Amino acid sequence: MKLATFESGNTLQLGAVEGETIRPLGFAGTMIDLIADWDAKRDSIARAAASAKAVPLASVHLRAPVLRPGKIFAIGLNYADHIAESKMETPKHQVWFTKAVTAINGPFDPVQVPKAGPFVDYEVELVAVIGKRGRHIEPDQAAKHVFGYCVGNDVTERFWQHQTPQWSLGKSFDTHAPIGPWITTRDEIPDPHALGLRCIVNGETRQNSNTRHLVFNVWQQIAHLSKAMTLEPGDLIFTGTPGGIGAAMDPRQFLKAGDKVRCEIEQLGAIEATFVAEE
Amino acid sequence: MKLATFESGNTLQLGAVEGETIRPLGFAGTMIDLIADWDAKRDSIARAAASAKAVPLASVHLRAPVLRPGKIFAIGLNYADHIAESKMETPKHQVWFTKAVTAINGPFDPVQVPKAGPFVDYEVELVAVIGKRGRHIEPDQAAKHVFGYCVGNDVTERFWQHQTPQWSLGKSFDTHAPIGPWITTRDEIPDPHALGLRCIVNGETRQNSNTRHLVFNVWQQIAHLSKAMTLEPGDLIFTGTPGGIGAAMDPRQFLKAGDKVRCEIEQLGAIEATFVAEE
Repeated sequence: MKLATFESGNTLQLGAVEGETIRPLGFAGTMIDLIADWDAKRDSIARAAASAKAVPLASVHLRAPVLRPGKIFAIGLNYADHIAESKMETPKHQVWFTKAVTAINGPFDPVQVPKAGPFVDYEVELVAVIGKRGRHIEPDQAAKHVFGYCVGNDVTERFWQHQTPQWSLGKSFDTHAPIGPWITTRDEIPDPHALGLRCIVNGETRQNSNTRHLVFNVWQQIAHLSKAMTLEPGDLIFTGTPGGIGAAMDPRQFLKAGDKVRCEIEQLGAIEATFVAEE
Repeated sequence: MKLATFESGNTLQLGAVEGETIRPLGFAGTMIDLIADWDAKRDSIARAAASAKAVPLASVHLRAPVLRPGKIFAIGLNYADHIAESKMETPKHQVWFTKAVTAINGPFDPVQVPKAGPFVDYEVELVAVIGKRGRHIEPDQAAKHVFGYCVGNDVTERFWQHQTPQWSLGKSFDTHAPIGPWITTRDEIPDPHALGLRCIVNGETRQNSNTRHLVFNVWQQIAHLSKAMTLEPGDLIFTGTPGGIGAAMDPRQFLKAGDKVRCEIEQLGAIEATFVAEE
């Protein structure tokens, strides 16, 4: 299934996307509530969706599928071409930083060029949404802990990212974690390590790679994170970005108000933001 | 007021602490719900507390006052003596990392020595609890955005902290963010920059300083963070630790199962954990 959070007539709802339509699930709760109870609810939700009236997708406002995750962890330097353009060594160990949960943004909502930092860049990423709570998850069990996948843009303010050695603040500006357009449940994605992904700025393809090039794959990522902490339903894992970022272009290119940034991943759909100056 | 989250007979409640007793508030909601609505609720809460039956503190289980904050940001290298022992330069800019919200732990609950990383260390810190939502908060307005203060131990696994340049993973192990014992509202703390703080390990005082020695004070911290992101009710800011950490001792000392670590701050009380091997 493709599960979305959407607004229609000021009401927040969950829905199932089919082609260009969405069917409200009539579920009283958030996406995280649904994820946490998915095994029990799955069949009744599928029936409810099948009998609901389909509404044109274009008539609703898609919000971030998970509006308020518990945690957002993101891995750095995880595609060979991005490591090369960043003039870094391939890490021996997984390099993790975080994005603040207040940075979550809808898939088609405007993204801010902050007053405090104009050096804004894009990073298309496969995002894994945790389904089943767990700690010390072995790589061969990790797939079972994933609820599904969506597209993310790990929007980054490069000056703040590098003002100190710690990246998390420059990754955490409001609106800088757009995700969506919906969650595609994992049964529809037999192999998350074979998905083309692209970032297109004002019609120009800037990033164009495939998740098969991940240095540390999704299962290794889940295994490593869960050695330290309990992963919970709705936690988001940004799995790394390929080469092609604006900061590595010659001359360097940063996003400015009016730019349109589209991030797309095979089988998962596309998100697209217009960048706007923070008011 | 001193506001606590506590369990009594399997019921989670909020209460007001007075001396060695606690009075249930009869508030149907979490501490964050109360914080978010404090201006409206404050008087009725005070009346409810005054008329409630006082229960001995020793008879209840104090939980973390904020059980599930939206964000936990923590500043590094923010006391001169800790910077010196870490053999670092005084930072020109505030260095921020995060602790995962799943690391939150009760003030007197056991803290784990993780299976994946035994190099566990303590860091006593003044923790500011955000009250009023805000972005772009000026330093001279920052006090108004604080709900209150509590004691925190920024428990750290040093190997994971330094395995890569990004610290957040080594700061995020389950149970490694004990806070409490309660929140002292800011009206009782006219100056948060004049509080003695100490960390005592098995009866030996290891850290002993005063918040007057903060490099970046609490107001500067709130101003800087809020340039990037919206601060929300219940967000926690760990404001830095003074010198005396175990990793800087000669020879280096790490915490092991059975160790008792007490963190205390003038006017805010004390938290104390027994360290236990992760099962």
